[in-house]
Amino acid sequence: MTSLAPELHPPVRVLMGPGPSDTHPRVLEALAKGTVGHLDPYYLEVMNGLQEMLRGLYRTANPMTMAISGTGSAGMETVVVNLIEPCDSMVVCVNGVFGARMADVAERAGANVIKVERPWGEVFTPDDLKQALASHPKVLGIVMAETSTGAWQPIEEISKSVHDAGALLLVDAVTALGGVPVEVDAWQIDAIYSGTQKCLSCPPGLSPVSLSPRAMDVIMGRKRKVQSWYLDVSMLANYWGQNRVYHHTGPINMTYALYEALRLVHAEGLENCWARHLLNHRALRAGLAAIGIRYSTQDGCILPQLNAVFVPEGVDDEAVRSALLNRFGIEIGAGLGAYKGKVWRIGLMGYGSRPANVLLFLSALEQLLGEQAFRFARGASVAAANEVYSAVPASA
Amino acid sequence: MTSLAPELHPPVRVLMGPGPSDTHPRVLEALAKGTVGHLDPYYLEVMNGLQEMLRGLYRTANPMTMAISGTGSAGMETVVVNLIEPCDSMVVCVNGVFGARMADVAERAGANVIKVERPWGEVFTPDDLKQALASHPKVLGIVMAETSTGAWQPIEEISKSVHDAGALLLVDAVTALGGVPVEVDAWQIDAIYSGTQKCLSCPPGLSPVSLSPRAMDVIMGRKRKVQSWYLDVSMLANYWGQNRVYHHTGPINMTYALYEALRLVHAEGLENCWARHLLNHRALRAGLAAIGIRYSTQDGCILPQLNAVFVPEGVDDEAVRSALLNRFGIEIGAGLGAYKGKVWRIGLMGYGSRPANVLLFLSALEQLLGEQAFRFARGASVAAANEVYSAVPASA
Repeated sequence: MTSLAPELHPPVRVLMGPGPSDTHPRVLEALAKGTVGHLDPYYLEVMNGLQEMLRGLYRTANPMTMAISGTGSAGMETVVVNLIEPCDSMVVCVNGVFGARMADVAERAGANVIKVERPWGEVFTPDDLKQALASHPKVLGIVMAETSTGAWQPIEEISKSVHDAGALLLVDAVTALGGVPVEVDAWQIDAIYSGTQKCLSCPPGLSPVSLSPRAMDVIMGRKRKVQSWYLDVSMLANYWGQNRVYHHTGPINMTYALYEALRLVHAEGLENCWARHLLNHRALRAGLAAIGIRYSTQDGCILPQLNAVFVPEGVDDEAVRSALLNRFGIEIGAGLGAYKGKVWRIGLMGYGSRPANVLLFLSALEQLLGEQAFRFARGASVAAANEVYSAVPASA
Repeated sequence: MTSLAPELHPPVRVLMGPGPSDTHPRVLEALAKGTVGHLDPYYLEVMNGLQEMLRGLYRTANPMTMAISGTGSAGMETVVVNLIEPCDSMVVCVNGVFGARMADVAERAGANVIKVERPWGEVFTPDDLKQALASHPKVLGIVMAETSTGAWQPIEEISKSVHDAGALLLVDAVTALGGVPVEVDAWQIDAIYSGTQKCLSCPPGLSPVSLSPRAMDVIMGRKRKVQSWYLDVSMLANYWGQNRVYHHTGPINMTYALYEALRLVHAEGLENCWARHLLNHRALRAGLAAIGIRYSTQDGCILPQLNAVFVPEGVDDEAVRSALLNRFGIEIGAGLGAYKGKVWRIGLMGYGSRPANVLLFLSALEQLLGEQAFRFARGASVAAANEVYSAVPASA
């Protein structure tokens, strides 16, 4: 006889880590709407609306734009296993955890992987890729927003070199989408994926994917079947395309959630959404600077939505993160891999990117650091953040 | 400028198809609870509780019991790609769409697939498998509840032959789990997967999976990496095991939903849950018999939760299903593959398996059939169903 697990009462959290971020209340409401069938005429309308809004968000006309029934890593696997056939060569740019993951995924798909590496917290220039591209790979994969380091990789300037070498450009936009401009058509991105739980104010569970007509030609012309049945784009295209042929049962309620999340982004307007992410980042950054906390990311490529900073000298990483969680309900992220114990990752993503969160976090952090050996002028971080906010018109 | 898609207002449906089935109101509430982080101490408790309740439901002590972050088909792919290495041989039993899908998934994993076939609507006996097992395959895969035909495959009697041949037994329990007894340990099932959207009153999106220690030995002793990074059990075991090492971001709110769905099943009691599915099936069956509607499934192996019946002679399949949906909000399933246009699939799954649904469906069907050329004694189906209900004590 199995004993019943306790009633479900999740604590109220302020999610300021590397994701999931705070889910918008309207998205939570959408999740709880009554389930309909995956071939219900109404659900097909929801899929249409979702695809159209997703194209708007990705700034693309790609017909093959859809949500994969898995989290961001399933999106990564989808684009890789559909584009790669055994022995194809793929260049993967590695400057953090997610580039390394992409290389692993590609190797499992049978690719000859050429890794190009940069130190954590830095980004790639076209020059860094020159040598690897000279081998004329089939695909070059790169992470636009490295969640492990907070580095913001410019895409436009490398796109030309990738296409000049005859390769397809594959971009990880998991933490990028919604937080900073992502221009799929203007930058000629061939394959891109994201997650719902970062800058889209939605819980984890789906991966928005878009594939250019050029990528679709490669996929439809494959010599052998895609190794994954679940992620086979040639079959998914029949469900997400005009035929609406059953493939697998779509995650109905999560699809409602993403639909509502996309309505929120478009109601705000993409440019306003990016500007909001930038403003709250500037306020946080000013606040942190005022108490001497430094970013671990290379200057000039810091993501507004993911702030990776060094744990101050003499401060106990784990103790501060626990106290933030237990005394204030605030979650921030620990460092991963090489950054373990040394870096905090502070997310300002989607609904979580708002002045209330910035001020609460800085105030709470000041309280906790004041209890440790770390010295600074009390109130300095909040004052500096408020100065940033005061400089913009109240309507912004 | 993307135009905003319309507000989300799903119509109220009574889901009596092959799944998704009606989501329980308490599960919808659980879905809408505030998102917490995937490494939050509270979330780890939720994972523990979910695993324990899932073991109870599967009747197993398997430590490796978890929910895959994808729908039922992702569960199928998980067990296959983790157990199979290229050139391993796998027997797949095919008597409907999902057996055929399993063979496709296994081939994509590099298996030498030996298909054993039976006509749609029928099941396999140990004798049917004898010849294929004589080749000593690594794995035999079989579907316990064929969603395309409504056939209920006995597992216990074939388990012995499979193990005598030295093979691992892999079972698809997508439509079975929660509706009929599934005894993982007693029947010595080595790998099993299910879906949330059938008899668990939960939306689609996760796949409960369990692997025996014997299966785990095979997985941990693999010669090469699993072809799927996302579904690699050796890494998932580190997240769902005691270490709780980050792999991918779990689908938090869907996990809440499954947790609550499992609480509902255990609060009712498994035996009571199976008995309820059986009673409502008997009532539906009596009702259908009273107006001359016949099952397409072999007698003696009809699943209580999925009733596949022939569309009566002279009745327009599509017109009846559309009218059920548009006039009564009732969804039933069309026939798949060989059964297209010939068979209706009527689900009585999870929260959807209740007298109210049986009576509503029969009354609505009588009205619609009465408008077509089909003749029967008015009220006969409802009377017959109510007779079944009257024969059991009101408390049942």
